[in-house]
Amino acid sequence: MSLARVHNFSVSLDGFATGEDLSLEAPFGHAGERLHEWMFATRWWKETTGGNGGSSGLDDVFVRRFDPGIGAEVMGAGKFGYPGWHKDADWKGWWGPNPPFHTPTFVLTHHTRPSIEMEGGTTFHFLDTSPAEALETAREAAGGLDVRIGGGPTVIRDFLAAGLIDHLHVVVVPILLGRGVRLWDGLEELETAYAIEAVSSPSGVTHLTLTRR
Amino acid sequence: MSLARVHNFSVSLDGFATGEDLSLEAPFGHAGERLHEWMFATRWWKETTGGNGGSSGLDDVFVRRFDPGIGAEVMGAGKFGYPGWHKDADWKGWWGPNPPFHTPTFVLTHHTRPSIEMEGGTTFHFLDTSPAEALETAREAAGGLDVRIGGGPTVIRDFLAAGLIDHLHVVVVPILLGRGVRLWDGLEELETAYAIEAVSSPSGVTHLTLTRR
Repeated sequence: MSLARVHNFSVSLDGFATGEDLSLEAPFGHAGERLHEWMFATRWWKETTGGNGGSSGLDDVFVRRFDPGIGAEVMGAGKFGYPGWHKDADWKGWWGPNPPFHTPTFVLTHHTRPSIEMEGGTTFHFLDTSPAEALETAREAAGGLDVRIGGGPTVIRDFLAAGLIDHLHVVVVPILLGRGVRLWDGLEELETAYAIEAVSSPSGVTHLTLTRR
Repeated sequence: MSLARVHNFSVSLDGFATGEDLSLEAPFGHAGERLHEWMFATRWWKETTGGNGGSSGLDDVFVRRFDPGIGAEVMGAGKFGYPGWHKDADWKGWWGPNPPFHTPTFVLTHHTRPSIEMEGGTTFHFLDTSPAEALETAREAAGGLDVRIGGGPTVIRDFLAAGLIDHLHVVVVPILLGRGVRLWDGLEELETAYAIEAVSSPSGVTHLTLTRR
């Protein structure tokens, strides 16, 4: 069975998954890289980016679940680019010529454009559809494998509210952003549909896994 | 040195410390008792309420920090009673004749009334002052011991914003309340003033301790 999975989705203690004032220069706004420093410290990140060292404990175990078994990704327009990227005909995402997805990757946007084939197996497709339709399209492209729901927070919230997520991994980072876009808004009693497990890492973050009951 | 401490302050995953629709019948509104079930399961709670059994692990270790070294408590009007309690001349709090504070207990309210001496060492005093002044008054009453800041969320936020809290223990409960009063609002970059430690309990909650740097 093909699952819809979220991995390594970082939020602050006060629940923000991105800051305010997003721009080409500041993809996460005033949050900067503070939500993702736990990930940069892992061995997986070092290996992936050509470095050495890194931690091989709990954070690394979780972060490595990103790739295996995934056959496609769905992401929101706000993850693919800075506010206004749709006016830039040459924009191909933040990730350079070889993005880290390595599968068909569906971008939900009201401003669709022709598909873009990148190096390393990533092809960006642009869809103006509902979450359920996007997931169905991605599942077909995934060839029986799972689909990663890549974010941002609004997209994950929409997919959760529509009952489409099977596995959600959230990383709570011990900082207070104070402002930005919240992950958890409007999801009252989500725990009735998901078993929630929390495990704190010596790095300071807490890994939450929500598994559909 | 007399510290200002918060203990066993429970919030939902989405950061709410109390629900909506508070009343005499529903002290925590639609949240019910869900934020505090972890506490009711501890050995400390069973002992305190005349029961048997209960867990003696991590949750119990944390919950027992409530009393030792405390010489006074400060609480908000919203903790002392239901909305409108100030119109009830006979209201003496939720806790019956022998409240669990056993020290002078200062209630911050715009509707002051004469002090009420209860059994077991608790005396309620009513103050219409700033957080800093209330803390000073409570410190004098505490005779060199620490002061517990008892909540609710608005009071803790006000004391944090005023830089008055030395130690904050928050218990994150894996439920989503969706609405109510949030603890963390307006506290951007609180982590620069506090070392934050998180430890998850097998019971499912995560204990956060914030210690002033």
